[in-house]
Parts: sequence; structure tokens; C-alpha cells
Amino acid sequence: MRATVLYSPGDVRCVEVEEPRIIEPTDAIIKLSASCICGSDLWPYRGLQPVNEPAHMGHEYCGVVVEVGSAVSTVKPGQFVVGSFVLSCGKCPNCLGGWPSSCVNRQFMSGGQAPIARIPNADGTLVATAEMPPEDLIPSLLAASDVLGTGWYAADAARVQPGCTAVVVGDGAVGLMGVLAAKQLGAERIIAMSRHKPRQELALEYGATHIITERGDEGAAKIRELTNGIGADSVLECVGTQESMMQAVNAARPGGSIGFVGVPHGVSLDGQMLFFAQKNLLGGPAPVRRYLPQFFDLILSRKIDPGKVFDLELPLEDVAEGYKAMDERRAIKTLLRL
Amino acid sequence: MRATVLYSPGDVRCVEVEEPRIIEPTDAIIKLSASCICGSDLWPYRGLQPVNEPAHMGHEYCGVVVEVGSAVSTVKPGQFVVGSFVLSCGKCPNCLGGWPSSCVNRQFMSGGQAPIARIPNADGTLVATAEMPPEDLIPSLLAASDVLGTGWYAADAARVQPGCTAVVVGDGAVGLMGVLAAKQLGAERIIAMSRHKPRQELALEYGATHIITERGDEGAAKIRELTNGIGADSVLECVGTQESMMQAVNAARPGGSIGFVGVPHGVSLDGQMLFFAQKNLLGGPAPVRRYLPQFFDLILSRKIDPGKVFDLELPLEDVAEGYKAMDERRAIKTLLRL
Repeated sequence: MRATVLYSPGDVRCVEVEEPRIIEPTDAIIKLSASCICGSDLWPYRGLQPVNEPAHMGHEYCGVVVEVGSAVSTVKPGQFVVGSFVLSCGKCPNCLGGWPSSCVNRQFMSGGQAPIARIPNADGTLVATAEMPPEDLIPSLLAASDVLGTGWYAADAARVQPGCTAVVVGDGAVGLMGVLAAKQLGAERIIAMSRHKPRQELALEYGATHIITERGDEGAAKIRELTNGIGADSVLECVGTQESMMQAVNAARPGGSIGFVGVPHGVSLDGQMLFFAQKNLLGGPAPVRRYLPQFFDLILSRKIDPGKVFDLELPLEDVAEGYKAMDERRAIKTLLRL
Repeated sequence: MRATVLYSPGDVRCVEVEEPRIIEPTDAIIKLSASCICGSDLWPYRGLQPVNEPAHMGHEYCGVVVEVGSAVSTVKPGQFVVGSFVLSCGKCPNCLGGWPSSCVNRQFMSGGQAPIARIPNADGTLVATAEMPPEDLIPSLLAASDVLGTGWYAADAARVQPGCTAVVVGDGAVGLMGVLAAKQLGAERIIAMSRHKPRQELALEYGATHIITERGDEGAAKIRELTNGIGADSVLECVGTQESMMQAVNAARPGGSIGFVGVPHGVSLDGQMLFFAQKNLLGGPAPVRRYLPQFFDLILSRKIDPGKVFDLELPLEDVAEGYKAMDERRAIKTLLRL
């Protein structure tokens, strides 16, 4: 089959690879309904994360189960499933405690930018819908696999509550999903930090009440203007750089909360600064598996439309252009047709 | 009057100083019932924090109001009061929101190791008891000013809940108060990390159910043994070094919480480490003012006895020996008779 391989920074291609098959009895094989490119795929693409060997890219997926290993009992061939980008066992204390993304047997999904994929630990990772979903909801269900879950976790970790003021740092796909999540969780005011017109528009559509284009000290001053001079209750950090992290810390009020979901690259936090800031901090890979049933309800009842975050659609064969468009910020997020 | 001045690391003395008087209309003057030395006083005493000019030491205090400025309305001469080591206005959004220790007009108390002290922002800082407390409760009421409040905040920030497992890193006075607080907040298991016999004994008396003497990787392994292999729900960091902070991070389970109250000195946290750890982190100066009414209830009804943490009592004149005994870990905490 044809699938996506990253050979070195900037060199990503659709090439012929072997079709995946069941290896462990806990595996499932799925035929993907669609795939996509994640903002985090850009870290190695941009050379900000090492590429030691050719990497099978793609960790966001949904589709129809083709085959399951002998030990799989919760999904069966013919079912439509979505799984988390974190593969989890479903049985360890962290999975049982609601933290599947810190599963003791955690693996990270790869090889999802392809028509067929192997899903290890299928029972702990996949959730099936009650029936085959309508075609037009595939993008939103695909988003549930990571980008929606990650934005939602940012809002959850930032303890967004009804009536609160939330700030979203980062206007990428995850940040936009963070806006959507903050709205769903009842935030009264949602301040999106963005300087890109199309992203501002989508943020407003998803529920942002304010747009701030300034960054750094100026951005922080604008937020304080809107928040009694002290900062926001909840801040969603959706980038992962030192600058964005400090922007998030500065945007929250004392006693407020920061959910950080951009994988930090080169970020270091001074202990005494954090102490005197007196703000809750929680990050990590999103516990998507925990959220999936709720996402199915919201998406299948058409209460949310996370699929709108895909503003470029390409055939898998053109995956390189998909990366390039996102790298150059011409696209928010690329959906790959299979 | 005679009061405590730190001239340079190691050189602390009881010397003649001018008696404080009302300066601002929001001040109160109190006659202290007792004073004490804080673990944080050891940072400059040990030269780990600069001493740029002679410093009037002491930030823990309780006593009787002698005089109030014209703008003070909530306390009056003759009342017994306790105040926080953080002086707070009581009117700013942070004070009103329950975060007096991040008061917009925050000042830190000084000059409390003395018979008489000036308390700025008296209305926002002091709380009076309904009547004059019995003499034997003075040490416990003095503890409420900082050490109890700080240990309590560590448990609160670490989200100790009924039935949870809590770990306390640090067996100083704050750590021991953390044990007491965790017990009060309903922790089922309280694991105190301590290698000092008298401190272990007090920890057990305050409610610790387990003592771990190992540190570093061995200590973390012992904790995992007791916690399903994943770590504790709540960890109270009561030291403030890189080692203790990492011990705390390693002792918590994913999704668990760390309350850090030891003022960090030379502590730096890697963003990616914190991300993959996936643990809640909240530190800062304790919002003691918020807790004081609750502390009064618990202490005056003799439900808790935080005053036991004072295992050395000296006249103010011998304050230098009090610092020395704590520095050499011969004493947990020194009470100063005035």
C-alpha cells in the first residue's frame, strides 16, 4: 500500500510500504475513513525533533475494523471506530483512574497517514460508534482522535467552568479546538490570541468573544485590561515554546489554571517564578480515550463541528504538499483523502 | 526595644532598635504574645539568599492590639489577633477571590522577632479571636500565622481529599504541619519522608501512617510499592530544592497533584518533563488569611495542636542560639519568649 514516510526534515513522501497485519493478539487492523496531518508532525518535519530513521507518520485515525486479534473483545470487524493517538491498555491503574494517556503500557500511534493501520491494544484504545456514521461527519470524528481531544484537555486541565474567563494561546488547530471546548464547558468570555484573519474568524465561529492580536507584554497587558487587572481564570497553552508558555503563565490570575498541551520544545520554568506566580499548571498528552464517548454524543448529534478545522483536503498521494501548506501556515490543518 | 537583626549570613543578634509606631492610617501596632523562627529565615542565615542590609527578622506573630491607625475598622486595641506572614489589603480582586497571598498590594511581614510590631494593612491582614485565648494555646495560634498555614496550603494545593494517599516531602516544621493538614483533610494514608527519629515521631503523632527514610530513586521506588506502582494522589513539597522538587514530581501519580510550598532556591523544571509527567502543580506563599477563621475553630476547640512543632523555647535575647539550633537540625522550630 501507499503510506507516508518522513525521511529527514522537510523530506516527507507517500511511498510503497508493506500492509500492516495482526502481530499481537491484542491488535486490530482498521481501514481508515480519512487521515490528517497534526501540528506535532511539524516538529520533526521542521527539524526541531530528531529524525533518526525513516518514520511512518500519522497518529490520528478513524475507520472500519477489518480484523482483530484473538484477544480483542470490545470491537469487531465491520464496526466504525475512533481511537486515541495514545495507545492504552485499559487495564492498568492509570487507565482505570482516567489517565489512559499515562497508561503504564503506553505507546504512541504511528502509521496513521495510510489507508490501513494496525492498532495495538485495541480494547483499551478504540471506541466503536453504535452505527455507521454519516459520511459528512467523518472529519469531525477524525478530529476526535487527537486535535479535538487535545484542545478539550487544554480546557479541562485549565479548569474551565461555567462563567469563567478563558484565554487561548495559539491559533493553530488545537487552539481553535480549545476555543470550542471552552465554549462547551461554559466559559463566559473566551479570549483568543491570534493575528491571522482566517483563524480569528474560525475562533469567533467556535465561540471566542474577544480576539487579541498583541503578543508578549502587550498581549498580557490587553488581557489584564479585560480581567480586573489580574488575569484570566483559565489559560489554554496550545503551542509549546518558551514564549507561549510564559505568555500563558502571565495571562492567568493567581489561583487560576493553565492547561498546557503544546508539546514543550526547549521550555524551562524557573521554580521561584512558578512559586510566586501561584498558578495551577497541568499538561501532558490528552486522555482522549476518556473523552471519546462524550465526543461521539456531541458530534453525532451535530452539537459541535470540529471538522471545520480542516481547511485543506488533499489525496494521500499529495501528503508532502499538506505538510508544506501547514508549515507555511497556508493551512490550519490538512485532511488526507484515502 | 530589643529585637532581632540579621547583619550577614550567620550573624544574627538581638539588638536595641527603635520601637515601631503607626506610620500609615491602615497600620496597627501589636504587642506580641510570642514569636518564633521560620525555616525560611535560614535561607539568608545560611547565605543562600543575599543579605544586602541589616534585616529586621521575623514574620510569624500573634498578640494583642495596642493601637490602630485612623483607617482601621476591623480590629481594635485590646483584641487578640493573628495575622498572615503576607500583609494583604483585603480589597483587591486577588484578596476578594481568596488569594490574599497574591494581593495586588502584597507586602511581606518583617520585624516579628520582637516584642512589638507594626502591621501594615491591618484590616486585610489580621483576624481577632472572639475572646482572649488561654495561655497554653499561644504556640498553636502563633503557628497559624505561617507554619500551619503553609503546611495546610501544601495539602490544599496538592488536593488532599478523603480517602487519598498523600506523601509529604520534607520533615521540617512545615512538612509536619503538612502531615497534620493531610490528616484533617481526610487522607487515608500519609507517607512522611523523614530520616530523623524525633521528627518521625511527631509525624506519626500528627497522623502519618508510613515513614520512608530513603531518598531519590530509592524513595520513589518505596512510594510506588505502596501505591499500585504509579505514585500518590497528593504530594506536599515542603523543602524548596531541586532534589526535593524532583522527588515530589516523581512521587505523584499521573493526574495527581503536587503542592509546593518550600520557596524554591535554584530550582528549574524542564517543560517536556513536566508535560509527560502529567501532574498538577501549584505552589506559592500560603493564603493564610483565608484559612485563619478555620484555624481558630480547630485550635480553640483543641482539635489540633500545631504548637507541638516548637521543640525549643528560648528568650528573645538568645535568638542567635535559636537560629543555630535549627540550622544544625537540633531543633525543629524555635519559639521565642518575649
